[in-house]
Amino acid sequence: MQPGDRVRVERGDVTNEGVLLPSTTRDHLVVKLDGGYNVGVDRDAADVEVLESGARDVDDGADAGGGEASEITFDDDLPTVSLISTGGTIASTVDYRTGAVTAQFDAEDVLRAVPDLAGRANYRGRVVANILSENMEPTIWRELAEAVAEEVAAGADGVVVMHGTDTMQYSASALSFMLDSPVPVVFTGSQRSADRPSSDNVMNAVCAVEAAKADHAETLVCMHASPSDDACALHRGTRVRKNHTSRRDAFETVDAEPLGRIDYEAAAEAGADGDAADAAIEWAREPLPRGRGAVDGADEDADLATATDLDADVELAKFTPGMDPAAWDYLDGKDGVVIEGTGLGHVHTDLIPRIEELVEGGTVVAMTSQCLAGRVCDRVYDTGRDLLDAGVVEAGDTLPGTAKVKLMWALANLSDPAEAMGRDLAGELTEESRPWR
Amino acid sequence: MQPGDRVRVERGDVTNEGVLLPSTTRDHLVVKLDGGYNVGVDRDAADVEVLESGARDVDDGADAGGGEASEITFDDDLPTVSLISTGGTIASTVDYRTGAVTAQFDAEDVLRAVPDLAGRANYRGRVVANILSENMEPTIWRELAEAVAEEVAAGADGVVVMHGTDTMQYSASALSFMLDSPVPVVFTGSQRSADRPSSDNVMNAVCAVEAAKADHAETLVCMHASPSDDACALHRGTRVRKNHTSRRDAFETVDAEPLGRIDYEAAAEAGADGDAADAAIEWAREPLPRGRGAVDGADEDADLATATDLDADVELAKFTPGMDPAAWDYLDGKDGVVIEGTGLGHVHTDLIPRIEELVEGGTVVAMTSQCLAGRVCDRVYDTGRDLLDAGVVEAGDTLPGTAKVKLMWALANLSDPAEAMGRDLAGELTEESRPWR
Repeated sequence: MQPGDRVRVERGDVTNEGVLLPSTTRDHLVVKLDGGYNVGVDRDAADVEVLESGARDVDDGADAGGGEASEITFDDDLPTVSLISTGGTIASTVDYRTGAVTAQFDAEDVLRAVPDLAGRANYRGRVVANILSENMEPTIWRELAEAVAEEVAAGADGVVVMHGTDTMQYSASALSFMLDSPVPVVFTGSQRSADRPSSDNVMNAVCAVEAAKADHAETLVCMHASPSDDACALHRGTRVRKNHTSRRDAFETVDAEPLGRIDYEAAAEAGADGDAADAAIEWAREPLPRGRGAVDGADEDADLATATDLDADVELAKFTPGMDPAAWDYLDGKDGVVIEGTGLGHVHTDLIPRIEELVEGGTVVAMTSQCLAGRVCDRVYDTGRDLLDAGVVEAGDTLPGTAKVKLMWALANLSDPAEAMGRDLAGELTEESRPWR
Repeated sequence: MQPGDRVRVERGDVTNEGVLLPSTTRDHLVVKLDGGYNVGVDRDAADVEVLESGARDVDDGADAGGGEASEITFDDDLPTVSLISTGGTIASTVDYRTGAVTAQFDAEDVLRAVPDLAGRANYRGRVVANILSENMEPTIWRELAEAVAEEVAAGADGVVVMHGTDTMQYSASALSFMLDSPVPVVFTGSQRSADRPSSDNVMNAVCAVEAAKADHAETLVCMHASPSDDACALHRGTRVRKNHTSRRDAFETVDAEPLGRIDYEAAAEAGADGDAADAAIEWAREPLPRGRGAVDGADEDADLATATDLDADVELAKFTPGMDPAAWDYLDGKDGVVIEGTGLGHVHTDLIPRIEELVEGGTVVAMTSQCLAGRVCDRVYDTGRDLLDAGVVEAGDTLPGTAKVKLMWALANLSDPAEAMGRDLAGELTEESRPWR
């Protein structure tokens, strides 16, 4: 069995017939189907019959997919989903020399690594970055938002963003503020790389694609809902947080239920032929409808509204007991500062004059809480009242990381960014009053 | 009815007889019983009969309890519990002029405000600080630890520390590292002040006193386990976190069950006459036994071991995407830095040379994760391996705030503080290997 052979591959109930391609993973056979798709099949327990040796010429070099393999035909009956890769574990493999995980795949490689995606949609692949997400930067958030906008303008019925999990919540927040999308934008990633037995990448990718095909226009994070492979949670991009270093269900919506839940088996089955799998999704609240960006009544094919400017001169400053007040000297002259205070939104009294100076110097200073859940409320205790007198604005129950991204966006796009920190723009802040007592 | 009258107060099933004292709260009558205790009774639905007008002279000024009222007799049949006040909501009332909450009570006032504490123990009251806990500082941690040590040496069978909730977790961590106590040290506080209908202070105080009388030697945080008034959770001081700004059950043990749970009704009843309420406590794991500090075989009355030195030159530095690398300039020359990284313990690659310089300059740099739950593991991804090469030490699953306190303590007390960050000293780090996959 060699690359170029025409083969029939049976595994479980599934049979694929096509030309064997070189595979960049040890665990998968990659077969180019006659329809143009590349399908990956787990080598384990796969039964391969060679129908014709050397049926096609295929490359066997760095361009592992071969020339023709990268051509993917479009089927008018299928929805179109754009897969945008930024790197991270879902687009990575283990370096067998070092044992470390490196990001090296592009969007087409993901299709090859996740054969279960085949047939569900026409895919447009796009690489915006190829980084581990701790290296994500605001400039890339802009490029990502602009790429999503272009994909929607080009006809995508939904967009899946493959992203490293470390900073996915920041990027999902950024796109939530930057885009007013008429179609779903679904972030997904993987906590364990594809070649590990416990990998979450197949289920997360399938659920994300099905969520992107579904009837809504939310910007979501789609990741394992529990330690089992039963469902993914659909988290609002501005309310989600990676709450565990390694669990597959590390992502949680803070202080609320996730916006929705997509059943893996039901979604995989319902969407396999390109149909929408809406019945597999249970929404906790009504999602924004498709086309919501089209305020002028244009349909969902309209370009989405974008406001991708960011003011990067914003810092997140965490207060802890015993901290050196000099730690905040570098904040002088910043355009914005988000404080991660204690409890209802407090810092040591000695820091309040410093904050007052920042505000007087023109810095917008917003307060959040390191508790993470619950609203800040600086009207209760003396310290808080002094902070309000100093000109601090309260960010409600906005998560500290989301508040940083929001302030970057608000400073660049709104006439009164301080005021905006106290109200909801993209689901990041619970507007209803939840009295302190 | 005037202060100084001898009265009989009936409320529900309870009757108290004694001399009426001036009360500093609007909601409670305070009666000095013949046994020497001051008892507070909710005015609401209380039936008061004056037995003798002007039976005693009592002050009616700032020293609201009156001269004699502060004398509390000791009953040899009761255990002795020291109540140490540091301020915070549990020791506070609302300022009716401003509507804000101010810390103004000392330990004896707590007895007056929480009549349910009477009869459970002989109390020793002590004020170490009178601050809202956002103003807590390492110097006060030392004073607090030394006060606890003195109380234990003076014969306390348990110590209750009343503390503001904002930074309780940091103080509880500090005492966990500083003290090797043969008796329970139980932190408690209140999310709602005593005169609010939803106050949690009575239940928290009663549960804390009963936990302090019980048969163990843990340093705990005792706070509401749920939104109802049914039980308090007993959290290990080094694993607990205030996870909500305002809920009464804001405190949670991160990534594990609380060490124990104390049923309010059962504990209140069993301990009312001074007996231990151990049957009301359900331990998730075996607690340290009373006397554990007595490694030489001395009994629980032995002084506890203390190591209260701290190196305050330690900072917690949180990494977020888009941060200004200049934010870390002030770290140069610090004795210790705890990084709150992303995911398994990462920062932007550009920051790694800076960290390397810190380590080369003699700073101990320890890595934790802003995920909060789960272990850091820098052997998996390139970034992490580079961090390890730069000399970062991994703090396992130690919480970032706890890691900061630990490093302050380790630098002052241990010969190899960097090594110590990777192993468990006081329940802060899960030693067993939990493989990344």
